[in-house]
Amino acid sequence: MDQQSDSLFSFSERARQLTSSAIREILKVTERPEIISFAGGLPAPEGFPVQAVQAAYDRVLSTAGRNALQYGPTEGYAPLRAWVAEHLSAQGAQVSPAQVLILSGSQQGLDLLGKVLIDPGSKVLVETPSYLGALQSFSLYQPRFKAVPSDEGGLLPQALTPELAADARFLYALPNFQNPTGRTLDLARRHALVQAAARLGLPLVEDDPYGELRYAGEPLPGLLALAGQAGANVVRLGSFSKVLSPGLRLGYLCAAPALIDKLVQAKQATDLHTASLTQMAVYEIVKDGFLAEHMPRVRERYRLQCEYMLQALSEHFPAQASWTVPQGGMFIWVTLPAHIDTTRLLAQAIERGVAFVPGAPFYAGGQAAHNTLRLSFVTVPQEKIRAGVQVLGELIAAYR
Amino acid sequence: MDQQSDSLFSFSERARQLTSSAIREILKVTERPEIISFAGGLPAPEGFPVQAVQAAYDRVLSTAGRNALQYGPTEGYAPLRAWVAEHLSAQGAQVSPAQVLILSGSQQGLDLLGKVLIDPGSKVLVETPSYLGALQSFSLYQPRFKAVPSDEGGLLPQALTPELAADARFLYALPNFQNPTGRTLDLARRHALVQAAARLGLPLVEDDPYGELRYAGEPLPGLLALAGQAGANVVRLGSFSKVLSPGLRLGYLCAAPALIDKLVQAKQATDLHTASLTQMAVYEIVKDGFLAEHMPRVRERYRLQCEYMLQALSEHFPAQASWTVPQGGMFIWVTLPAHIDTTRLLAQAIERGVAFVPGAPFYAGGQAAHNTLRLSFVTVPQEKIRAGVQVLGELIAAYR
Repeated sequence: MDQQSDSLFSFSERARQLTSSAIREILKVTERPEIISFAGGLPAPEGFPVQAVQAAYDRVLSTAGRNALQYGPTEGYAPLRAWVAEHLSAQGAQVSPAQVLILSGSQQGLDLLGKVLIDPGSKVLVETPSYLGALQSFSLYQPRFKAVPSDEGGLLPQALTPELAADARFLYALPNFQNPTGRTLDLARRHALVQAAARLGLPLVEDDPYGELRYAGEPLPGLLALAGQAGANVVRLGSFSKVLSPGLRLGYLCAAPALIDKLVQAKQATDLHTASLTQMAVYEIVKDGFLAEHMPRVRERYRLQCEYMLQALSEHFPAQASWTVPQGGMFIWVTLPAHIDTTRLLAQAIERGVAFVPGAPFYAGGQAAHNTLRLSFVTVPQEKIRAGVQVLGELIAAYR
Repeated sequence: MDQQSDSLFSFSERARQLTSSAIREILKVTERPEIISFAGGLPAPEGFPVQAVQAAYDRVLSTAGRNALQYGPTEGYAPLRAWVAEHLSAQGAQVSPAQVLILSGSQQGLDLLGKVLIDPGSKVLVETPSYLGALQSFSLYQPRFKAVPSDEGGLLPQALTPELAADARFLYALPNFQNPTGRTLDLARRHALVQAAARLGLPLVEDDPYGELRYAGEPLPGLLALAGQAGANVVRLGSFSKVLSPGLRLGYLCAAPALIDKLVQAKQATDLHTASLTQMAVYEIVKDGFLAEHMPRVRERYRLQCEYMLQALSEHFPAQASWTVPQGGMFIWVTLPAHIDTTRLLAQAIERGVAFVPGAPFYAGGQAAHNTLRLSFVTVPQEKIRAGVQVLGELIAAYR
């Protein structure tokens, strides 16, 4: 059945746009164990609370097994929705459980938002660069991306002119330790952003998978927490992937009831609901304050890994290169001299056994910077960070 | 933020079509414990293998906890894909693991198929009536449904004329104990269907969530198993919801590699991948033949429940009513005298403490039969089956 399979189906227009990217193909080799890969976006498995997860599944299955294995409501498990509402309220937002939708990973929130907010040709505002997974998710609904100008401090609220915001369905932003840059939006810009959004009637989608991974600087209020005062309309996405583990596929979304209604209907058609067992087990883990004990250990690990890579970069990268110094999260963003194309550099690096992600695919709705790259430091042993960065430094110095 | 929330967003065209159905609103009352509900589509929780699930999660987390909690490949956990391929091959289909995509419940397969195969206005062929969840899933991609004529034996392969099939993206069919009718397509029609599909170049989507729940008659080969010989192109959806439990949200899809490629890319944008822990635990349960021991017990329970409802129907329903006698699965479909509108009947039944699902919403792309209804018998205790059916019988007799 595979011989003529290309002609077996009439694919939708959106599916015809899906193509396996060249970079994805190159990066497949990074799964080989001999490769030092800074390309991944995986959290460090040493930080996964395996025993707590095991104990929670055990308790749930022992005490409420049949409920945990039955269909559940599309909105999510009520105690977990209440926990999320309380968790967000403790951070300064005013959230009721009815505004919370439990997701099969926060990536699903991006898909559902695309489904209910994007028509072909709809304008969607994005940071430059932005999270590739979100660009891919939204792309299936065929929006017209427009880049919001930014600098090393992240997006520039004053660049949100009425013209840029006109008819935009929303602005997608990651204020904390952004993927891919590691940048954090400072407090003044956060205030200015929600005020601009309120003035322009522009919904903000705040994606915050890394917010709990802060290991430097002071915690800042999220856009949702600032929204109430400013009268802005903020949709907030959160995830258990970086605080507990990504293999559970559990996230959540908080939004105005009118949007939740539509998203619930879309989610019902998409996957009925998120696994009851997973929701009940995670609730069992977090309900008594486990994260307050657990997260400091995770943050400390990430801080050390980050510090080690920053040290290696300053030793081995040429003076003409610059990079971000993240206050949390998993990524460092490097800007090389303008003549260096990091997609070409990647091919050379792979030959030397080192991988990273070139920056260009993270740009949408504007000009891409081909001299940029993303480094992830969290899963690579420290001696390999040093060796890998040294190789990259040599290749950059020799690049022509 | 909720006061003016209706005007806070510009919804997509597909989202504006999403409306909370009147029936869904009525059926919300069926969650009240005093209601005898034949409306549900829930499997019987007494059949859930809670201990086996608990032991499997324990083993996986003890032996491979970090892997189980890490991100995994979008295609699915390789040993589980291989198990599915072997399981389908044992039923007469020739399937390689590369043709298997693991899903977050088989409902997700419907959404992904809609995503990659349906453009606004695309023709999609459906049985009459058909599974409501599939109609809702596909509807988000704005197809034009066309009904394939059917009789009490299910869809009529000879009705698949070149005109009806022309430009159709696929035909969606449930050959075994269909939801909502409980009908099973006989062997002759299965052969005729795959032959017609091959001749017409029409892809078939075979949805088989209930196939393992056969408690009467001989097992019949699925459309995928018959496809190879006929040269037909069959996409098969399977689920662990009715063999293990729905709360796990785990299913799979088997298709030609060209379609799998597109679906994998669409799934990556949709939810990255299905939970690693769930996949590994389910593989741990099924790998050594657990289902062969477990399913006979589940089938026997369903058989008894079905028999009990059939008995009650023949005692309490008037002679002018007719109903299907399912060979498996969870549903009986009742056809009442033509003057009875089952949506009106439902309102009367709810007042008397009994619920069911009216038949009309299950029809798409053709005329709906307003005198039909669906009864689910699996989760209702036997004495309540009798009492509930008696009430319905009285209301039907008194209907005017």
